[in-house]
Amino acid sequence: MAQDKPVFLVIGAGAGIGGHAAARFAAGGYHAVLARRSDQDGLERLVRQIEDAGGSASGTLLDAAADRSMEELVERIERDIGPIGCALYNLGAQIGNRALENTPHKTFELGWRLGCFGVFRLAYAMFPAMVERGKGTLLVTSATAAMRGNAGQHSHAAAMGGRRMLCQTLNAEFAPKGVHVAHVVVDGSVNAPDTLGKLLGDKWEDYKAMKGPDGMIDPAALAETYWHLAQQPRNCWSHEVDVRPHDDVPWWNDNPNPQIDSTGKGFAGPKT
Amino acid sequence: MAQDKPVFLVIGAGAGIGGHAAARFAAGGYHAVLARRSDQDGLERLVRQIEDAGGSASGTLLDAAADRSMEELVERIERDIGPIGCALYNLGAQIGNRALENTPHKTFELGWRLGCFGVFRLAYAMFPAMVERGKGTLLVTSATAAMRGNAGQHSHAAAMGGRRMLCQTLNAEFAPKGVHVAHVVVDGSVNAPDTLGKLLGDKWEDYKAMKGPDGMIDPAALAETYWHLAQQPRNCWSHEVDVRPHDDVPWWNDNPNPQIDSTGKGFAGPKT
Amino acid sequence: MAQDKPVFLVIGAGAGIGGHAAARFAAGGYHAVLARRSDQDGLERLVRQIEDAGGSASGTLLDAAADRSMEELVERIERDIGPIGCALYNLGAQIGNRALENTPHKTFELGWRLGCFGVFRLAYAMFPAMVERGKGTLLVTSATAAMRGNAGQHSHAAAMGGRRMLCQTLNAEFAPKGVHVAHVVVDGSVNAPDTLGKLLGDKWEDYKAMKGPDGMIDPAALAETYWHLAQQPRNCWSHEVDVRPHDDVPWWNDNPNPQIDSTGKGFAGPKT
Amino acid sequence: MAQDKPVFLVIGAGAGIGGHAAARFAAGGYHAVLARRSDQDGLERLVRQIEDAGGSASGTLLDAAADRSMEELVERIERDIGPIGCALYNLGAQIGNRALENTPHKTFELGWRLGCFGVFRLAYAMFPAMVERGKGTLLVTSATAAMRGNAGQHSHAAAMGGRRMLCQTLNAEFAPKGVHVAHVVVDGSVNAPDTLGKLLGDKWEDYKAMKGPDGMIDPAALAETYWHLAQQPRNCWSHEVDVRPHDDVPWWNDNPNPQIDSTGKGFAGPKT
Repeated sequence: MAQDKPVFLVIGAGAGIGGHAAARFAAGGYHAVLARRSDQDGLERLVRQIEDAGGSASGTLLDAAADRSMEELVERIERDIGPIGCALYNLGAQIGNRALENTPHKTFELGWRLGCFGVFRLAYAMFPAMVERGKGTLLVTSATAAMRGNAGQHSHAAAMGGRRMLCQTLNAEFAPKGVHVAHVVVDGSVNAPDTLGKLLGDKWEDYKAMKGPDGMIDPAALAETYWHLAQQPRNCWSHEVDVRPHDDVPWWNDNPNPQIDSTGKGFAGPKT
Repeated sequence: MAQDKPVFLVIGAGAGIGGHAAARFAAGGYHAVLARRSDQDGLERLVRQIEDAGGSASGTLLDAAADRSMEELVERIERDIGPIGCALYNLGAQIGNRALENTPHKTFELGWRLGCFGVFRLAYAMFPAMVERGKGTLLVTSATAAMRGNAGQHSHAAAMGGRRMLCQTLNAEFAPKGVHVAHVVVDGSVNAPDTLGKLLGDKWEDYKAMKGPDGMIDPAALAETYWHLAQQPRNCWSHEVDVRPHDDVPWWNDNPNPQIDSTGKGFAGPKT
Repeated sequence: MAQDKPVFLVIGAGAGIGGHAAARFAAGGYHAVLARRSDQDGLERLVRQIEDAGGSASGTLLDAAADRSMEELVERIERDIGPIGCALYNLGAQIGNRALENTPHKTFELGWRLGCFGVFRLAYAMFPAMVERGKGTLLVTSATAAMRGNAGQHSHAAAMGGRRMLCQTLNAEFAPKGVHVAHVVVDGSVNAPDTLGKLLGDKWEDYKAMKGPDGMIDPAALAETYWHLAQQPRNCWSHEVDVRPHDDVPWWNDNPNPQIDSTGKGFAGPKT
Repeated sequence: MAQDKPVFLVIGAGAGIGGHAAARFAAGGYHAVLARRSDQDGLERLVRQIEDAGGSASGTLLDAAADRSMEELVERIERDIGPIGCALYNLGAQIGNRALENTPHKTFELGWRLGCFGVFRLAYAMFPAMVERGKGTLLVTSATAAMRGNAGQHSHAAAMGGRRMLCQTLNAEFAPKGVHVAHVVVDGSVNAPDTLGKLLGDKWEDYKAMKGPDGMIDPAALAETYWHLAQQPRNCWSHEVDVRPHDDVPWWNDNPNPQIDSTGKGFAGPKT
């Protein structure tokens, strides 16, 4: 049923980043539309939590890779729910490390479909109405793999690198028309049961314990940064922002930190 | 006189970015200490505005390039005013474009002293107490010249490039100890009378008119982003953030935007 | 028929970069295999020129986008001609500037297939034998769009950005095994009749005249740099190299060069 | 005594990179002028080796940090020896890792003087004659610290970051005038007794043994790449080139290489 609030659309609304972002934007006055691939119960739980907190939300299962799926969702929202004020593309296709010989062609393509082509399709479907209204925001939860390609990450890095350049081309064309595109590089683990937790399986609890209280990104904190980006007035927009836990070594640094010798002269290491 | 609020120290507090940041942090509960090179009246005006709005502030003239000046200011604040919770290094040495032959050695060195060495000195003086308290923030108002060196910008770009790498080394050493270092790339004009306005002289009013209402960064908006960065919990820190007006072409793009041919195939240009 | 020389395989052998690279490697003792999509006559002309100069070459038409096409070519070469010592991936899918609404989904996908997926397929097919031999080189003729995304370049930049990250993941996995991966950013026009000339059509002659004698990259010069990269001993490998004509403004700079004021102080421009 | 060959000037001519570059350019027909801070015997040995191989060379002790030292050397060469065709700035001020509190202000400044200001001074002194002749080359042996700042590297990274931006500003102004500026990022250990060997002291032999035959950059190989850069025609100039041994992990990758799981799905690590 149509309503008055601008819509915040989350493509990939798990209990981590997507769910927390939806909660934050709902608290800020948006109607949050949560879309995820599976687990109807989990989806309804997230929607209920938002409603219990006084916010407005709805959910839908979505196979983002399927033809016309996102396009029809965007049409339906604009027609039946309300104008999309902000969308969060929160999908990737991280499959763990695979040597090249163990990266099937289909896998490489799927990484591109979900990680890069999906962003193109969403923008293609969503931007015309935003341009007509003269405003809108696209936030993209991205990865370190958009900045550099590690061994074993052929599919994921190619998809992320492509998406990063696409975010720049989209920004170049649409920022002047009032659409804010922000590429957010999540450079560290996120306390997210539906993605990282699932990937780690039974090692998840130990991993969390090892990381400690501030060793992983709190998705509520990231949601706050997403909220800030969406609130920036158009005379002061950020396009690319990195985030990580304070004791996580940034991707550009040697890891672990080279030994800092505070008493004398030590060998700095060859890459200095 | 000592007081209870954490201190927000602005090195380079003009009426633009520095003054607005001071106002925002004062509104957020900090005692703002505004330091600038000259114009005692302007300084007092900024302090009064903050106090009139219910905030707490004080000001001091500061020759940041002078030996021991910033160091003594930091000591004095920690001893007489309160613990520095956050500092904003808001100085550069932009002198306009100069061919190499018109960039005196003294000028090249001054750019380094104000743009790069000053950040080193401030961190050196300020970080030990922050580390002891287990928290603190250093925000650096930086420039596109930290990312790429344009013709005519020998002194400025060398200083900014050095400062960007220094921000990374400081972050690498101190983020694990609870000190948040953020390098903010201001990639566009700022509506700042004391810096850009002064540089443009009598062309300032025409420039503002040409740029239009959203064509320059509103320093109050940038102050809001600075506030957000300082509030990020330590499990979700951003190190590098860019800002620009929405219709400003990002530094990485061709400027002006290449012609987008929406009816047929056009020549993309050699740099694609 | 099998022969003794290592093979230099060019995927995308037009009369510009590909043809000149083939000639250079043939002069250096390789058997050059030139593969291109169409124009059998043009292909034969290039092969004959190499043979007339005393080198060894053969040509084949190749639809690189077609399933199994590159894979079968690699198999055939290894079986019937000789070991591939070096390959040059010289394909992109630059279609000129198109607004998002004029970038059909099929076009976006084709850019990825030719610009990114093709590199994956070639490496997948070719690297096992190179690893077994303990040596090999993959050169990729890349574009500025791999470094930044301009307006109107959605498909091309996404493909190039993806390919750049893929080159890094390939390098990370295979450089330790003796395979040299080099990503060459061609940041300027190339004097190449089959690609740029075709794109410009009847404007080609005027464009060349306007650019002047050193205003476009001489493909023979680029071939020399490719040759150098392939000859680097494995203790001193370059992964990423940029090239441009000396009077072409690098992509990272404002274009045109801001006015350098050599007599006084001038306004540097907002992006400094 | 004046002579006919163009001069190749090496600022920082140790037995590693500088000495090998001098030998290569002398073999290519230049008169090599080797300048180093100390060790007259070592200098004379390098000169003699070049002359014994049939080349032309001379040497001079040079305190590059001293006022007017490089300027007077450039004047003397142009007046008494010959036109400088190419110069190699081969100095840095790598002092090993130091925590901020153990980086004296004087040390931070010295890093800038040798690593950044020295490049400015050399270009300032040398470029006017090159511009008048319409040609010339400046090669800069640079470091990973120009690309990212590791912990403990405050002085070095600030100097290298500044120098990298300076190389871009110099390139922007002088490439159109025929002067080729190339910034070479040496991203790995170099088999160089006078710099790395000295830094490691009695651990040098063990380090070399551990690294193996191709584990360190052979300065003769790097000299070959320098030679190639200096020979590039001006329609095809490279500005930034990286080099490393093939089994050295590039600075942008996680180090060590994340475990590539070739049999199943493995955890990729948080920074992917």
